[in-house]
Amino acid sequence: MPRLIALYNVPADPEAFDAHYRDTHAGIVARYPNIRDVRLTKPVGVGGRPAPFHLMAEMVFDSAADLDAALMSEAGAESARDLRTFADAGVTLFVAPDEADA
Amino acid sequence: MPRLIALYNVPADPEAFDAHYRDTHAGIVARYPNIRDVRLTKPVGVGGRPAPFHLMAEMVFDSAADLDAALMSEAGAESARDLRTFADAGVTLFVAPDEADA
Repeated sequence: MPRLIALYNVPADPEAFDAHYRDTHAGIVARYPNIRDVRLTKPVGVGGRPAPFHLMAEMVFDSAADLDAALMSEAGAESARDLRTFADAGVTLFVAPDEADA
Repeated sequence: MPRLIALYNVPADPEAFDAHYRDTHAGIVARYPNIRDVRLTKPVGVGGRPAPFHLMAEMVFDSAADLDAALMSEAGAESARDLRTFADAGVTLFVAPDEADA
């Protein structure tokens, strides 16, 4: 199942970031039409190095068409606006299509 | 299940990269002790932007202990050495622990 993946850089105030994500952003993402699952993980560095990201959000859809429709939806636009209010350390967004095409 | 995730930057020669990954690196990763699955996906950019990475490799383990043991194994050391021969555009490594801890 295709995923929209957001990798959030480490913010200046991780607690404020987490509170905003939990209290505001998660609710917007939950309104993406036909979203099937959201996996949130906190990356950990390898070999003693610091974590390269603060949070990875994986938003799972049944199909590439559903994922594209979510990005174009009102909730998708609201999410993009909201990112500008709390993800000032930067965020990298990409789509991970179904596997076995690498 | 915890994952070791490698995000490879876009190489100068994607075809040579893919050939090396397929013919050499994948075989090393397959020798990680107790590895359960490897998911390979080719990231796609969002909103018309280019893909931020060329390849995402997700290496899945049953436990954090198994993942750590794989990193410390001979195959783990061989993988690190091999990265220096083909991932010259850069690679970002991190561990994604089990979800629901974000």
